[in-house]
Amino acid sequence: MNAEKGLLIVFTGNGKGKTTAALGMAMRAAGHGMPVLVLQFIKGAWPYGELRSFDKVEEIELKPLGTGFTWTKESLDEDRRLAAEGWEEAVAEIRRGRYRIIVLDELNVVLSYGLLPLNDVIETLRDRNPGVHVVITGRNAPAELIEIADLVTEMKQVKHPYHDQGVKAQKGVEF
Amino acid sequence: MNAEKGLLIVFTGNGKGKTTAALGMAMRAAGHGMPVLVLQFIKGAWPYGELRSFDKVEEIELKPLGTGFTWTKESLDEDRRLAAEGWEEAVAEIRRGRYRIIVLDELNVVLSYGLLPLNDVIETLRDRNPGVHVVITGRNAPAELIEIADLVTEMKQVKHPYHDQGVKAQKGVEF
Repeated sequence: MNAEKGLLIVFTGNGKGKTTAALGMAMRAAGHGMPVLVLQFIKGAWPYGELRSFDKVEEIELKPLGTGFTWTKESLDEDRRLAAEGWEEAVAEIRRGRYRIIVLDELNVVLSYGLLPLNDVIETLRDRNPGVHVVITGRNAPAELIEIADLVTEMKQVKHPYHDQGVKAQKGVEF
Repeated sequence: MNAEKGLLIVFTGNGKGKTTAALGMAMRAAGHGMPVLVLQFIKGAWPYGELRSFDKVEEIELKPLGTGFTWTKESLDEDRRLAAEGWEEAVAEIRRGRYRIIVLDELNVVLSYGLLPLNDVIETLRDRNPGVHVVITGRNAPAELIEIADLVTEMKQVKHPYHDQGVKAQKGVEF
């Protein structure tokens, strides 16, 4: 196998730190001058303020996708349409290779709700441009994705203040 | 309890993403204009290039500490002295509260090697300035630390390319 092949990296699990780990990776790669694309599959997952600091890092492009998901049975078709639209944009970049790292934030959630045809997603990821590292975040990564991934970390919740102690979520530290 | 108290957050485990999660948190907090201090307890854990992108984010101050650890029995006293020096700097900031978030990167490793008196560290963290969130990373977080932490995530390695497939570590994605 080609040792310089871009990696497929998955951050999953019920603990905190999945998206933040992907963002930290983006910063590190940017430090090497590598262009990074972050596609955010679930709108509102990050408050706008939290993204402002990335504006200063020219190597990183952040793009919200799939606004308007409702996650209800009644609007399943509409949610599927939104997911397909976002995924189409991801596919183009995964094939093109002008970004060295592509983060697909919360894609696991979209997949676990069955909003995209899993086989197509797996195939696209497997046939990705060899120069591209793809980082996928979100709970409930499908087994098929873990199977083809190069590196998988499960963020396991050991302790959580909002559950255990009733502390309010706080601006700037709530991930 | 005071719901606005700063949190003590621990990222531990044998998987990838601990430091990157802390760096991603730093970026998010910076997006809210919060001042962040990152104290790096193990020199060389991050290649210099990876830190360059943080230069552009004025809210984040990165500081390497404890250069020169050798991790050998022969130089235990010297390593202890270096750890104590770095820790002294951390203590001052944890008490002062001019930073809203303080990341103590790889402190768990320093603690698990017994290079600092654990009781002192636990006491300082427990009595931290209430306005400060402290984020601690590294494998093998001591049980006493997990006990007093508000939020603990274990990064669990599910799959790793360098072990499983012999792929070389790659610039910009090796964490």
